[in-house]
Amino acid sequence: MTERQRGGRAAKAEARREAILDAAMAEIAESGYRATTLAAVAARVGLTQPGILHYFPSKKHLLIGVLEARDQWDTAAILSRSTDVKLSHLEQIVEFNAERPGVVQTYTALAAESATGQHPAREFFTERYAAARAAFTGFLHQEFGDRMPGGLTPEQAAPLLIAVLDGIQIQWLLAPDEVDMPAAFRNLVTLLTAAERAEDPADLR
Amino acid sequence: MTERQRGGRAAKAEARREAILDAAMAEIAESGYRATTLAAVAARVGLTQPGILHYFPSKKHLLIGVLEARDQWDTAAILSRSTDVKLSHLEQIVEFNAERPGVVQTYTALAAESATGQHPAREFFTERYAAARAAFTGFLHQEFGDRMPGGLTPEQAAPLLIAVLDGIQIQWLLAPDEVDMPAAFRNLVTLLTAAERAEDPADLR
Repeated sequence: MTERQRGGRAAKAEARREAILDAAMAEIAESGYRATTLAAVAARVGLTQPGILHYFPSKKHLLIGVLEARDQWDTAAILSRSTDVKLSHLEQIVEFNAERPGVVQTYTALAAESATGQHPAREFFTERYAAARAAFTGFLHQEFGDRMPGGLTPEQAAPLLIAVLDGIQIQWLLAPDEVDMPAAFRNLVTLLTAAERAEDPADLR
Repeated sequence: MTERQRGGRAAKAEARREAILDAAMAEIAESGYRATTLAAVAARVGLTQPGILHYFPSKKHLLIGVLEARDQWDTAAILSRSTDVKLSHLEQIVEFNAERPGVVQTYTALAAESATGQHPAREFFTERYAAARAAFTGFLHQEFGDRMPGGLTPEQAAPLLIAVLDGIQIQWLLAPDEVDMPAAFRNLVTLLTAAERAEDPADLR
């Protein structure tokens, strides 16, 4: 085999791996992880089940592959690539998410499912949320210091921001024409960053 | 059969129906609806599958039974029974929920799952969220008028409150020792209700 043939084969294998992961994400968005079958993923990508198992030896390996592609869907992972994050960048990510309901659906299904029973993604999401709270707290400290203009500390604001990101996604997935996801997120940002109350800032502490 | 015997039988049937619903809620909390099997529900409640089917003719009927028991777990349904709801009542419900992770888990699993694919609970949750936004908007208007002290309208605050209720539950279920669910909710309430900024209230409009 020539160098060029080897390169062509590797590229083809990589493309097929990606196609399988895309199909798995779509299946999880449809049915959640527990109800996803390798047969359904195979049918979606036009392969046989043994064809899938050549790339991912089990359904659990496929889940790990989806989770490892987290940069596609994980706000915290996206932010961790930047050094100078500001709260306004988050608003852009929410607007971006509003354009791709499929990815949001995969994420929402997996995150909520991971909090039930013995789920193979439970540890991943537990660590992911802890990391997200730490990352959000860190960049809020950098931008606002120990207290945000609205009165909360970055430690108090971080879980709230993450909760609204997750919670508003469910409402938006169910009623995209009624729920304006970016607007709801901007409203929280406004509450968090509006100028400190003149009369008695201590009442928020 | 005497009147008393008939009464005893009806009470026994009702108790068994309740026990089946409790078992179904527990199974859904463990596995979600799609991966829940009638066999698992039957095993949990100590009945045979035909025994379950006598009370609920299909898995979908069982789901409907769980959804109809919504007063056990649905904040909006709890609130709709009261005529003079205040924002502070919501805080009490969050504190109550923090004492019963099982119910919260059933609800979180079902709500997120309902937003995926063709789910039998999708219509229920779509309507439930629309009703919750309307109910929250209504009681906020009653308590605060057309604008809340923090600057948002009741229409803007309602989806945010619901989003935080849902979103913080996921973080709390995954890390109950790290995430203080009632405190996070109180922080949002504080932001929404803190006295209007003296310098320029218009900047929030």
